[in-house]
Amino acid sequence: MTPSDIVLANRLADAAGAAIRDFWRGEIGIEAKQDASPVTLADRAAEEAMRRVLAAEAPRDGIIGEELGSERADASRVWVLDPIDGTTSFAAGRPIFGTLIALLQDGWPVLGVIDQPIARERWVGVIGQPTTFNGTPVSTRPCRELSGATLATTSPSLFDDHDAEHFMALAAKTAHRRMIWGGDCYNYGLLASGHVDLVVESGLKLHDFAALVPVVEGAGGQMCDWAGHPLSADSTGDVIALGDPARLDDVLEALACGHG
Amino acid sequence: MTPSDIVLANRLADAAGAAIRDFWRGEIGIEAKQDASPVTLADRAAEEAMRRVLAAEAPRDGIIGEELGSERADASRVWVLDPIDGTTSFAAGRPIFGTLIALLQDGWPVLGVIDQPIARERWVGVIGQPTTFNGTPVSTRPCRELSGATLATTSPSLFDDHDAEHFMALAAKTAHRRMIWGGDCYNYGLLASGHVDLVVESGLKLHDFAALVPVVEGAGGQMCDWAGHPLSADSTGDVIALGDPARLDDVLEALACGHG
Repeated sequence: MTPSDIVLANRLADAAGAAIRDFWRGEIGIEAKQDASPVTLADRAAEEAMRRVLAAEAPRDGIIGEELGSERADASRVWVLDPIDGTTSFAAGRPIFGTLIALLQDGWPVLGVIDQPIARERWVGVIGQPTTFNGTPVSTRPCRELSGATLATTSPSLFDDHDAEHFMALAAKTAHRRMIWGGDCYNYGLLASGHVDLVVESGLKLHDFAALVPVVEGAGGQMCDWAGHPLSADSTGDVIALGDPARLDDVLEALACGHG
Repeated sequence: MTPSDIVLANRLADAAGAAIRDFWRGEIGIEAKQDASPVTLADRAAEEAMRRVLAAEAPRDGIIGEELGSERADASRVWVLDPIDGTTSFAAGRPIFGTLIALLQDGWPVLGVIDQPIARERWVGVIGQPTTFNGTPVSTRPCRELSGATLATTSPSLFDDHDAEHFMALAAKTAHRRMIWGGDCYNYGLLASGHVDLVVESGLKLHDFAALVPVVEGAGGQMCDWAGHPLSADSTGDVIALGDPARLDDVLEALACGHG
């Protein structure tokens, strides 16, 4: 990881954003993938735009892309690309989706970008450095009690029945009238900026969570799986993001209380 | 209802928006109301700003405001104000809340505004006229089959157990991988612009739904309660917004299928 990687990550986000803006609230050609999740012309155009930049600038690095597959995925440096995280929100015209860009070093995320190309909001996280939001350092906020925490999650349908019981056990201990639904990666950016305390999801793929880790942790937060382990390319996709790491034990204990 | 009412409604939205932008992602002083729902300094400042305009410009009209109560609520013309619909989203820094402004004539909504003051997006609906989005006419989109419909709703906790069963019976018949959560009034604006097909909610108050009716219907859609009746000041708050009125029977039938 070098300063030029940060420049490159920003160029990738610029390229994806320009591609996505061309389709915003227009003809997006939505269709269902094999797993029934939606994909649009904008997802593909944005990933192609990023891959063109990588082919020119970092031809030896590996790529794992949500829409267009993997190349050299066993390289020590791998770019993980999710051109539109929150395709359903994008398709519905809501400006709370994002482009996710991560650089993995030996399987561990060391750089992450969450980019919202309509509102032109960008979080950049780099291991060992403060996370920035549109160039200005941001930090998570303290959360003294779980009962005062704002919890965010994208959809009830993320959870299978077993996970849903654990999730609801946790939700019942947070400030439930402040809970927010929907939002995908955007919720993690808001957590990094100190507006949300906790995001808990399950079933995420590597391209959904890799970029989030440096953003959240560089802002003073913590990310882990539902057992409290750090996230890597081998994680299962059960994800916790916490603005105040002092609440981790409370969160893990509440999650374990569900009758699974 | 005269053209000057439209000018006045826009001035109310301008005043509320300026007040809200002062608090955006800053110190908002969130607290819980008696019903446990959240309120912030921005909600109160925005409603005060609108009431100042009404006191100067339309002193005989009635006012029903979410935060600061009613005045002359039995007048034939009543302004219904919700300074921030989606206070939880506002507090979390998500630009998908809105200011709602309605003019009731003898209890029926004849003018409505949905204003998003951060993205500076405004839908204006007037009975008998085309709905506009930032000044340009918009229309809902056709929806040939319920199975292809994008359904939006704000939160699972809107519904009591009985309503939740009916809602889930409906959701199961829509394009469930395209369903979106969260969004409050913003979803109805997106429906008016043809990006969402269906919004179904329950437990809404007059200030939550009055402004939506002229916006949705002026764009070619339809709003009604869960029994298919038009919405007025006497409605219970079970709300359907439909982009393509030809799907109304399908929606009512699917909603009735829940085991209540």
